Amino acid sequence: MFPFETIITIDRNLKLPVYRQIAVNIIQAVRNGVLKPGTPLLSTREMASLLNVHRKTVIAAYDELNAQDWITIIPRKQVHISEKIPLLNPQKWEKEKQIPPYQNSLNIPFVEVGPITTPQPTDSFHWFIDDGRPDIRLSPISSLLKTYRLLAARKSVSKKTAQDNTQGTIRLRIELANYLSETRGINISEENLLITHGAQMSIYLGACLLAAQKTSVIVGKPNYPMANKVFNQLNAPLVEVAMDSDGLDVDRIERLCQKTKISVVYVIPHHHYPTTVTLSVERRIKLLELSKRYNFVIIEDDYDYDYHYSSSPYLPLASAQHYGNIIYIGSFSKVLDPAVRIGFMVAPTNFIAQATELRRLIDIGGDMYMQDALAVLIQEREISRHLKKAKKVYHQRRDRLAHLLQQALGSHVSFSIPSGGMAMWIRFHSTIDIQELAETLAKNKLKIGCIDKTENAFRFGFASMEEQELEETVDQIKQAIEQLIQTN
Amino acid sequence: MFPFETIITIDRNLKLPVYRQIAVNIIQAVRNGVLKPGTPLLSTREMASLLNVHRKTVIAAYDELNAQDWITIIPRKQVHISEKIPLLNPQKWEKEKQIPPYQNSLNIPFVEVGPITTPQPTDSFHWFIDDGRPDIRLSPISSLLKTYRLLAARKSVSKKTAQDNTQGTIRLRIELANYLSETRGINISEENLLITHGAQMSIYLGACLLAAQKTSVIVGKPNYPMANKVFNQLNAPLVEVAMDSDGLDVDRIERLCQKTKISVVYVIPHHHYPTTVTLSVERRIKLLELSKRYNFVIIEDDYDYDYHYSSSPYLPLASAQHYGNIIYIGSFSKVLDPAVRIGFMVAPTNFIAQATELRRLIDIGGDMYMQDALAVLIQEREISRHLKKAKKVYHQRRDRLAHLLQQALGSHVSFSIPSGGMAMWIRFHSTIDIQELAETLAKNKLKIGCIDKTENAFRFGFASMEEQELEETVDQIKQAIEQLIQTN
Repeated sequence: MFPFETIITIDRNLKLPVYRQIAVNIIQAVRNGVLKPGTPLLSTREMASLLNVHRKTVIAAYDELNAQDWITIIPRKQVHISEKIPLLNPQKWEKEKQIPPYQNSLNIPFVEVGPITTPQPTDSFHWFIDDGRPDIRLSPISSLLKTYRLLAARKSVSKKTAQDNTQGTIRLRIELANYLSETRGINISEENLLITHGAQMSIYLGACLLAAQKTSVIVGKPNYPMANKVFNQLNAPLVEVAMDSDGLDVDRIERLCQKTKISVVYVIPHHHYPTTVTLSVERRIKLLELSKRYNFVIIEDDYDYDYHYSSSPYLPLASAQHYGNIIYIGSFSKVLDPAVRIGFMVAPTNFIAQATELRRLIDIGGDMYMQDALAVLIQEREISRHLKKAKKVYHQRRDRLAHLLQQALGSHVSFSIPSGGMAMWIRFHSTIDIQELAETLAKNKLKIGCIDKTENAFRFGFASMEEQELEETVDQIKQAIEQLIQTN
Repeated sequence: MFPFETIITIDRNLKLPVYRQIAVNIIQAVRNGVLKPGTPLLSTREMASLLNVHRKTVIAAYDELNAQDWITIIPRKQVHISEKIPLLNPQKWEKEKQIPPYQNSLNIPFVEVGPITTPQPTDSFHWFIDDGRPDIRLSPISSLLKTYRLLAARKSVSKKTAQDNTQGTIRLRIELANYLSETRGINISEENLLITHGAQMSIYLGACLLAAQKTSVIVGKPNYPMANKVFNQLNAPLVEVAMDSDGLDVDRIERLCQKTKISVVYVIPHHHYPTTVTLSVERRIKLLELSKRYNFVIIEDDYDYDYHYSSSPYLPLASAQHYGNIIYIGSFSKVLDPAVRIGFMVAPTNFIAQATELRRLIDIGGDMYMQDALAVLIQEREISRHLKKAKKVYHQRRDRLAHLLQQALGSHVSFSIPSGGMAMWIRFHSTIDIQELAETLAKNKLKIGCIDKTENAFRFGFASMEEQELEETVDQIKQAIEQLIQTN
């Protein structure tokens, strides 16, 4: 009998369960050509005794090997290495026993996308100030998934799979067209809609189709960094235009247009990222006029439209009398859960058709059950009810945060209360350096998601925190500031 | 009192429910400036009587208007148009009452991705021969979603959202690294893995990083069309190399390498799309040698590895002694459900890092609950058990289809039985024109998903059909052929 003890080493300190260690060892031995096809294995009892493990462990290992076709189990419990082994000419393999680590040895140039973001391990933080995310404890995600399961369980396979869902399911697009009409005054048909894998994909698709002209793209300064990165990756010349409390400086855009060809203006009209300011009515109207006169496309990234509190929201530019040159972008990730990546793009039909073809190349399309489940939630008003509820809660949290900041940090910070959205933009006076503050907080296991060193500011996402959590967080910041002042 | 009957028209032929018609009409009137902020509405009883609808319908309409903040309901049931209306300077809007349709008026050039695929409406088909998809009636998707709900319901918000999941959740990558080692002999760490939104995204990302060199890319002829489209979109020069029953003609690749710089060879080693042939062992070894000698990258699209029946599967090229220049692509869409879009890419760490950054620009990342739910299913062996079961069923279906084709269409077709996968490649003799056949079948409401006019062939996805469905489908094809022969 084959000396199995020589090929099976069990290390109880490994995370891999013992039964899998046995299975993996046997597979490796077959791969190395040490165990030949047809070799009989010990009975489970014998093997258990040999390896000094419970017999159930060996049964589990054999079950696994059998599931993967490495062994054949014949009725009266004879077990042997399968005759049909997935082997690729084992002789060749024995030449070099050790497979080299699959790392960094690619000696062929590839396009570099940019500096690598090495995420810090989350385990090292106890708490996180996000950049404006919903409180998933309030989200109707459970209802969404219940609907998903119902839809996926319907057994009408064939006709369903025949559908071309790259543009998004027809059901979701019809419901969404109604929803956008009712909530935003955007009157479109389902042909003006492309369902995307989140708002970012809408930005990416829009930029790919528009920015390749190598004419300039105008963005705010500061701007949503992930939009800038997309334009940079496409080699589109970026022109930064200052932001003030009324949003993008539209007069500056006019002067730029007089001098140079502008192809795209990227604008976040509500609760701008990161500054949270809202574009004023006058500037909206002027921007629309400029877009006609100078023939540029407006990418209107309205990711945050659904959340407005004290003041009335403005209708999107896309709902106005425009000239077929607005790409409107929105998302349900801020409504449901950042993990649920359903966004959309509203644009003229010919643009949507091309964006759909590009999207097909990227990932074929989205999850049709998830899309239809969302359609059901929209149709049954569950999304509206959730938003109404969430708005009340977030409104309170915003006001609570403003109060706490004023009380605890009043002398160190300045901020204005945003009319909506999920985050506040906190600027520090020059006595406090935001980078130093973030480092001090990181030592206390609190991580800040979005800081801006130039503006000496950070985004405080209040929506995801309950009032007590807000209090504790502001208190931690206060302590860190006191610590900083003492040290400096 | 305002003459509401003049602004509310109910059309019972519309699909829009009556209560929503009422709500939409009121919203429009507010938007047009006809109904001013503060205007009182009729009580629900009065309005119901005026419009001749049930009072519950009006209550639903008011609830909806209230949910959207268009009206204010004061305790004793006084209802009026909200004072805080989302209006953008209504005077300006009245100039042009009719919002133009949002269509085709974009007069700015954009990059065209390609000819538009106009999908035929599915309603017009009763039945569909797909190009090789799993039978979702067998899929463990319900178990996946149950796990998803459990994971999403855990209320530890903050630390979770702090994670950077663009590369895929750490949990799924660790489980997948184990799974790939056990099932495919690919020994990697989780840093060699990028979780993508389906295999197509892996192709897209790989091609973006590699094909921009403007040196040639080798593909099979025929090839998976969506891969060719990606390379075309990136302006990579495509060189087509013939396929025979052993797969890509590797000698031809060698001769090409001697003449010109090749940067990428895209290969589908198992059950090639569309022809279903498998690359032979000898050619695999030679391809690896060539990749070293001529310094090209192999994109190994092994979308179908999990399904092999009669003959032994070969281990992937990526499991062999290679030179850090293989991008290995796989997917769980064929295991679970085409709607569940989880694929992966295995590559050297520096390549994975850049692919991750590019993926971040495209869509930030995937659904982390879905990924963790899949990790749980892999860990608990549910995926292995499902595959074992599904393989048996699909094996039977493959053999049943081969038998049916031989019996019913033997004199008109030629095909070889694929060693695995989910589809058979059926070539028609020159007496039958595949295009004509497809049109005849379409008249009988049967649609074929993948036909190739040059090869006069189509892919018959057998995995998704039960045996009786296979019989009925083959019978329909037989009848259509008889019809064709009679007419010609």
